[in-house]
Amino acid sequence: MPRYALKVEYHGAPFAGWQRQKDLPSVQGAIEDALAKLEPRAHTIAAAGRTDTGVHGLGQVAHCDMVKDWDPFRLSEALNFHLKPAPVAIVDCVQVAEDWHARFSAIERQYLFRILMRRAPATHDAGQVWQINHQLDLDAMQDGANHLLGLHDFTTFRSSICQAQSPVKTLDELRVEAVHGMSGPEVHFHVRARSFLHNQVRSFVGTLERVGAGAWDPVDVRTALEACDRAACGPVCPGHGLYLARVGYPEPVFAQ
Amino acid sequence: MPRYALKVEYHGAPFAGWQRQKDLPSVQGAIEDALAKLEPRAHTIAAAGRTDTGVHGLGQVAHCDMVKDWDPFRLSEALNFHLKPAPVAIVDCVQVAEDWHARFSAIERQYLFRILMRRAPATHDAGQVWQINHQLDLDAMQDGANHLLGLHDFTTFRSSICQAQSPVKTLDELRVEAVHGMSGPEVHFHVRARSFLHNQVRSFVGTLERVGAGAWDPVDVRTALEACDRAACGPVCPGHGLYLARVGYPEPVFAQ
Repeated sequence: MPRYALKVEYHGAPFAGWQRQKDLPSVQGAIEDALAKLEPRAHTIAAAGRTDTGVHGLGQVAHCDMVKDWDPFRLSEALNFHLKPAPVAIVDCVQVAEDWHARFSAIERQYLFRILMRRAPATHDAGQVWQINHQLDLDAMQDGANHLLGLHDFTTFRSSICQAQSPVKTLDELRVEAVHGMSGPEVHFHVRARSFLHNQVRSFVGTLERVGAGAWDPVDVRTALEACDRAACGPVCPGHGLYLARVGYPEPVFAQ
Repeated sequence: MPRYALKVEYHGAPFAGWQRQKDLPSVQGAIEDALAKLEPRAHTIAAAGRTDTGVHGLGQVAHCDMVKDWDPFRLSEALNFHLKPAPVAIVDCVQVAEDWHARFSAIERQYLFRILMRRAPATHDAGQVWQINHQLDLDAMQDGANHLLGLHDFTTFRSSICQAQSPVKTLDELRVEAVHGMSGPEVHFHVRARSFLHNQVRSFVGTLERVGAGAWDPVDVRTALEACDRAACGPVCPGHGLYLARVGYPEPVFAQ
């Protein structure tokens, strides 16, 4: 059966996360239902990252197996037609080898987290940013973030329901960027690793927000990390500021 | 009665425009209803620009008269509380002179229009951009736009229901900018004048899009302008890519 890699963008708000669940809307379910309109049967797709409730996709990658030999562009067009009006879009589609796997072939995940710093409620960006009322010290947050780079036991930043075999991971990038957004000053966190523990990015950002607000010193992040204790983590921030931005493979799959 | 200037941001989608209408949701109506929660009586507010259905506000300015002497920050907080869950936010509030007028004191309006160039349906930016499937030549669009700058009879770019006394206006800026948005390549039009005719920005952008697509030469914009004939205009583009970005006054009203 020909296999297709799908680059998937979605707004997380209406979904109980990526993963198909009984009686709850999911991104996976929306795409599998659209596939069933094209080839009527049960479909099961795999994705690089199983994002939580409310978390957004910008460059999520999934794969599907089809019976018919589809032109990739026509497949993406047909899926987008059937996905309407759900806020899910197939932004690219490429035929891949039948042993290529969206999850197991991936060697890198990149997340974006957006904080909007302003008092008035967000309108255009509602549900797409974590909004806070106070200013943040970005230099202090970057200093705190730097303690997290490299190979560590990230037990402190791992949710209690995490199913990963080991809490030891290598964090390749955690960059704090000031962005002037349409709704006001934003802080963007660019976080990159081969793979992540459950709630790891939200645990990082929630902890670094405490540093930016002056409640924690940057070095307190190292202390929390070295504690290897979930109780040492700062507050986990909400999922609606989080985006799965990009998935990397040994051989680039999509044109961009 | 103390008068307050309100800087207002809103998502245009749920509203039949700014202006209060019987039995239709409007931004003016939402704010007047919130005011009535604070001082129970009929309120009538005035705004710098009466935006159409679906058009967004980023820096709309309105004014209201209150009986009580409100602290401006507390007034904005109270209004934002009562505006929820409507996507309308008072982002700044300043007490002004009792003869200051949001509309008649204004000396400049600035609009933003966003085009998103991509084939897959927008998810995060749905309803906030005009989406087109083809590429645009930005240099050609800027060449076309330059023909519109300065003092002209803009009859060609004026809707038939426009109530302005004269079609003669001075266009101070029409700048075409390439922007890398979260959802893909965007074109932003920055349009600035003392005042605008009804549908003028959407008529400009719809015409310039034809230039960018190669269907019109840049100089055809001058020919259309000089025709002083509504029929010479390109297609009027949809309102949901349009934002009232800023209103200028002789003395700056808000801190930023």
